[in-house]
Amino acid sequence: MLREDVTEAIRSAVFEELAAVGYARMSIEGIARRAGVGKTAVYRRWRSKLHLVLDLVSAIAVQGLPMPDSGSLEGDLRLLYEVTSRALRHPVASQVIPDLQAEAARNPEIAEAMQKALREGQHGVANGIVRAAVARGEVRDGVDEDLALDLVSGPLYWRSVVVRAELPKGYLGSLAAATAAALRAL
Amino acid sequence: MLREDVTEAIRSAVFEELAAVGYARMSIEGIARRAGVGKTAVYRRWRSKLHLVLDLVSAIAVQGLPMPDSGSLEGDLRLLYEVTSRALRHPVASQVIPDLQAEAARNPEIAEAMQKALREGQHGVANGIVRAAVARGEVRDGVDEDLALDLVSGPLYWRSVVVRAELPKGYLGSLAAATAAALRAL
Repeated sequence: MLREDVTEAIRSAVFEELAAVGYARMSIEGIARRAGVGKTAVYRRWRSKLHLVLDLVSAIAVQGLPMPDSGSLEGDLRLLYEVTSRALRHPVASQVIPDLQAEAARNPEIAEAMQKALREGQHGVANGIVRAAVARGEVRDGVDEDLALDLVSGPLYWRSVVVRAELPKGYLGSLAAATAAALRAL
Repeated sequence: MLREDVTEAIRSAVFEELAAVGYARMSIEGIARRAGVGKTAVYRRWRSKLHLVLDLVSAIAVQGLPMPDSGSLEGDLRLLYEVTSRALRHPVASQVIPDLQAEAARNPEIAEAMQKALREGQHGVANGIVRAAVARGEVRDGVDEDLALDLVSGPLYWRSVVVRAELPKGYLGSLAAATAAALRAL
C-alpha cells in the first residue's frame, strides 16, 4: 500500500472499530488488524487511540455542512434537517457520536474536540440560519443565540440518537415549520 | 449490614462506578470494592453487570416524574423543565445517561430497557402535557404526538447533555414559551 492509502485504511478502520466495540474497548491492535496493517504503522502516525480519535473528530469538523440559502427561515431549516438526518442515519455516525459523547463526560480532551467540532459544524450552520432570519426580520434582533441553537438542533438529535425511531414521511417539513414558529416567538 | 442495606449499597456503587469508568470498563470487582462487600454478595443478587444495569434502569423508570398541572401549556412545560434540568445537572445522570445511550447502540437488551424507561418516564409526562393542551384547545387535535415529544424533550437534552453548557437565568422560561409556540404551530 502507498503511505496515503495506509493512513486512509487506518482512518476507516478506526470508524468501523469505534462503531463495533466503542471507545473504551477499542485497541490499537484491533484497529491495525481491521486495517490490514502492522501496529507500528499506526503508532508511526498517532501516539495513542486518544490522539487518533481527536484527529478524526477534527477532520470531520473541518469538512463542515453546506450553508442553506433558500430565502426563508423554514426553508433553510428544512435543508439543514435533510442533510443532518442523512448523516445521523448512517449506522457509524449513530453509534460513534453517542459513544464519544459518553467519553467526553470523563475525558476533557475529547470533550474539547467534540465542542470544537460542534461549534464549527452544526452550530456554525444553525447560527448562520438564525442570523439570516434576523437580517430578513423573521426573527427578533437580540434573541438568545444559544437558546435558538438548542431549539434548532435538539429535536432531530433526540429523535435520531436518543429515541432511535424512524422518521415518517413529512416529518422534516413539519419539524422545520414548528421550529420556525418557536424561533419567531423568541 | 442488613440484607436490604447491602442491596442498596451495591445499587449506589453501580451508579458511582458507571459515572466514574463507564459501562464498558465497569467490573463486578470494582462495584463490590466500592460497595464494601464481597463479589459473591453481588452475584447472589444479579447474574452479570448487564443484569445489574437493566435492573437499575427499570427502577428509575418506575419512580417516574411528577405530572405538572398548572392549567396552561407553557406553565406545564416550565414545571417539566425545572424537574428535568435538576435531574440532568446531577453529575451521575449527566455521565451515566450518555454512557448507557452509547451502549444501547450495540446492546439490544440495554436499548430496550432504555426505551422502556423513556416511554414510562420522560415521554409519559410529555405526552400527558400535550394531551392536556389538546383538551384545553391550546394544541390542535390530531397532532403528530411523536414530533410533539421531540419538540418538548430535544432542546433541553441537547443543551444539558450534548453542549454541556450552563443554563443562564431565565432560560427555562424562554424555552417553555418557545416550545409552546412550536406546539401551537403543529
